[in-house]
Amino acid sequence: MPTPVPTPGGPDDSLDPVVRDNRDYTLFSWSVQSTSNPIHMAGAQGCWFWDGDGNRYLDFSSQLININVGHQHPKMLEAIKKQVDELCFAGPSFATGPRGQLGRKLAEVTGLAKSFYTLGGAEANENAMKIARLVTGRDKIITRYRSYHGATMGAMTASGDPRRWPVEPGVPNIVRVFDPYCYRCPFGKTPDSCGRECVTHIEEVIQMEGPHNIAAIMVEGITGSNGLLVPPDDYYPRLRALCDKYGILLIDDEVMSGFGRTGKWLATQHYGIKPDIVTCAKGLTSGYMPLGAVVVSQHIADYFEKNMLWGGLTYSGHPVSCAAAVANLNIYEEERIFEHVLELGAHLEERLLAMKHKYACVGDVRMKGLFSVLELVRDKATKEPLAPFNGTSPEMQKLAVHLKSQRLYAFSRFNMLWVCPPLVITRDELDFGLDIIEGALALVDDLIAVPVAADD
Amino acid sequence: MPTPVPTPGGPDDSLDPVVRDNRDYTLFSWSVQSTSNPIHMAGAQGCWFWDGDGNRYLDFSSQLININVGHQHPKMLEAIKKQVDELCFAGPSFATGPRGQLGRKLAEVTGLAKSFYTLGGAEANENAMKIARLVTGRDKIITRYRSYHGATMGAMTASGDPRRWPVEPGVPNIVRVFDPYCYRCPFGKTPDSCGRECVTHIEEVIQMEGPHNIAAIMVEGITGSNGLLVPPDDYYPRLRALCDKYGILLIDDEVMSGFGRTGKWLATQHYGIKPDIVTCAKGLTSGYMPLGAVVVSQHIADYFEKNMLWGGLTYSGHPVSCAAAVANLNIYEEERIFEHVLELGAHLEERLLAMKHKYACVGDVRMKGLFSVLELVRDKATKEPLAPFNGTSPEMQKLAVHLKSQRLYAFSRFNMLWVCPPLVITRDELDFGLDIIEGALALVDDLIAVPVAADD
Ligand SMILES: Cc1ncc(COP(=O)(O)O)c(C=O)c1O
Ligand SMILES: Cc1ncc(COP(=O)(O)O)c(C=O)c1O
Repeated sequence: MPTPVPTPGGPDDSLDPVVRDNRDYTLFSWSVQSTSNPIHMAGAQGCWFWDGDGNRYLDFSSQLININVGHQHPKMLEAIKKQVDELCFAGPSFATGPRGQLGRKLAEVTGLAKSFYTLGGAEANENAMKIARLVTGRDKIITRYRSYHGATMGAMTASGDPRRWPVEPGVPNIVRVFDPYCYRCPFGKTPDSCGRECVTHIEEVIQMEGPHNIAAIMVEGITGSNGLLVPPDDYYPRLRALCDKYGILLIDDEVMSGFGRTGKWLATQHYGIKPDIVTCAKGLTSGYMPLGAVVVSQHIADYFEKNMLWGGLTYSGHPVSCAAAVANLNIYEEERIFEHVLELGAHLEERLLAMKHKYACVGDVRMKGLFSVLELVRDKATKEPLAPFNGTSPEMQKLAVHLKSQRLYAFSRFNMLWVCPPLVITRDELDFGLDIIEGALALVDDLIAVPVAADD
Repeated sequence: MPTPVPTPGGPDDSLDPVVRDNRDYTLFSWSVQSTSNPIHMAGAQGCWFWDGDGNRYLDFSSQLININVGHQHPKMLEAIKKQVDELCFAGPSFATGPRGQLGRKLAEVTGLAKSFYTLGGAEANENAMKIARLVTGRDKIITRYRSYHGATMGAMTASGDPRRWPVEPGVPNIVRVFDPYCYRCPFGKTPDSCGRECVTHIEEVIQMEGPHNIAAIMVEGITGSNGLLVPPDDYYPRLRALCDKYGILLIDDEVMSGFGRTGKWLATQHYGIKPDIVTCAKGLTSGYMPLGAVVVSQHIADYFEKNMLWGGLTYSGHPVSCAAAVANLNIYEEERIFEHVLELGAHLEERLLAMKHKYACVGDVRMKGLFSVLELVRDKATKEPLAPFNGTSPEMQKLAVHLKSQRLYAFSRFNMLWVCPPLVITRDELDFGLDIIEGALALVDDLIAVPVAADD
């Protein structure tokens, strides 16, 4: 028999049978399949994972900003295996130990009353919107343009993210407003001239849409994949007041920003307000098991004492998922992870600010805890982005290729680069990764440097 | 301190601290919370589970018709724990062993090409509809009235089930048609006069909606929670031909009817046709881990080689969920479960037909494999249902209370009672449960018996 000859020019890893099966038999999300070039994750530990050839990568985006306690945490593995041995499954109408424990814990850490369990963030937001409509008897939901709430029809329409465009029209009665994006204020304001138009504008939209029609305002605690927009300190108190004034529910999507990412249980806890509904997923279990939750206020819980909750899914309250979440929340406390995030976050902030100072391409840096982004530009004065909205550029692609070549796994999109490592990262690991990023920024600075006149 | 006194008249199990936490801190799906009276599932094995007081129940509905291989199957526990130790999580852009193995296996058993992974059935259907729209460039989806496809906005609108009413309006461009419900033919036909109006009517709707506007027809392989409607043998060949004639994709929702429930991988395999897209969940992992999948044809897979797949979720391709599914599919084969289902299904059919003959209240029985329902009536001649559509009745409630008192866990809705035990049930266990059901039917017969004139 002839020896098999590798396809000329084919990528080396196409020979890895795992990669081959994954490409031949499975579809990759948000991508053109022929261009997807997956890494075979053969193993992982803490902030690191490795491929089939043993190449180690530092995970600077916690996978999809979810593996907060790091990969393969021994307490997580133990808790999951224990529950698997005890009871793998119970239908959603049953009471189980982990389901109740998690409900109690979520009430404690959010200051709210009861949890409805889903499997991921999209379903949590779908149910939050449904609940808000049922409780208020109103139809419209206000959401923000720079937002992502998930990919099922309701959550996708609620998102402002361009990922919704190809599947429009979506559901009716979503109204979108602008964001607290101070670096590029949609109202043309500067810190000096700002009158919190990002809130007053919402009030004007409420007037135009009819306050009595608006069930909820749904916002990400801190906007994640659409630019990590940290709001001014009084944004949330003002938004809360607006909701109270018109009887509108405040839905706080903490899927990405919750559970220690910013050093608190919820990003909104930095601002001293309490939402009516919190949605969560990702950091709730760190992704070890799929789980989402909708945590509601006492007022909403009371409503459903006497009224039907028109929602459900086969795996609501999955015992193993709930047990994983309980273990995960305990780890945050036992290992004092939030303190660590706040401490290390201060160090990260210093380093990011230094990069903004040092590199021509760094237009803005925004952060809270270990939730941070660098916004890259061609020119600090004009703020011309390094890649257009919903697009990329040769420079952004080179940056991504460089990071991958250095085995730093980081998330970049449009003209932004996120730094969101597992919350258990050490200072040394963080610095190691940030040094690689500095190398990439220097490279970009070279690429965008105005060429000196040359004679060729 | 005073000794706590139990609330007078409160249910006993309110003293079980697990039940108390579940009621105080969690929301139960599809219910008015004050009336939810959950059983504490303390443990389970095979076809049985037990509560905190050690009361054992026979599970005659496989939880939500999902725990096909029975509770706590040792091979499932082992496979899950092995994967947990190896690698709990990898983001959706990574290749992993279990993800590839499952894709290969699903291609083999469905005869289709590639799988996109979700977490549950609703998300699978959301993505199937999205995929059909992207691939065909058409917008409308035809679905059937008596159907349930999940509770997220897109899947809920696609459902005909009245559970969609309270959250309407849903997404645009869903068109609903009638069902192959021979016992109560929506076209007023009988077996003798039938001209397969359940298919010709769809063709007429296609004409009225514009064939070039219709992306897909989405149907449950065999309709589950809306009445277990087994279609005439030539229904699917005719529906397939209709789809081919107009270039419409056939989406086969096998969430409930797939994976051995009817004795085959897919219910539609009984009819010799191949859908373009199969959606699955439930029996894919038997619920041990949350997982759904959208399995697509080669034609669709080819489309996405060059075109963007506009869909995704954080937990797509979760390694532990995929590993659980691989183990589960292997169990079906190793333990020759489908043969068992077909054999035992024949016995079940005999017994159900005997009940129809024996009890006045049994209007119709429908079944395929271990997927079956009894449709109950007040009067066999008029077919007046024992409870109205989307409602209940004292008789149906008494039936449910009786079954629960006998510790048979079974699913009833409107005027129907499902018999869908785990596929590993033995003949003795099945007979044990069916005897309890006969007791309940005798009770209903007494309740509906025309009273003889009495003088009080
Ligand atoms: C803020 C936010 N909400 C919701 C979601 C959707 O969560 P999932 O992917 O689990 O459906 C995401 C996912 O990235 C998110 O970042
Ligand atoms: C046929 C069918 N499709 C879809 C679903 C929804 O699945 P899930 O509850 O996992 O979202 C169900 C659930 O019962 C179903 O029976």
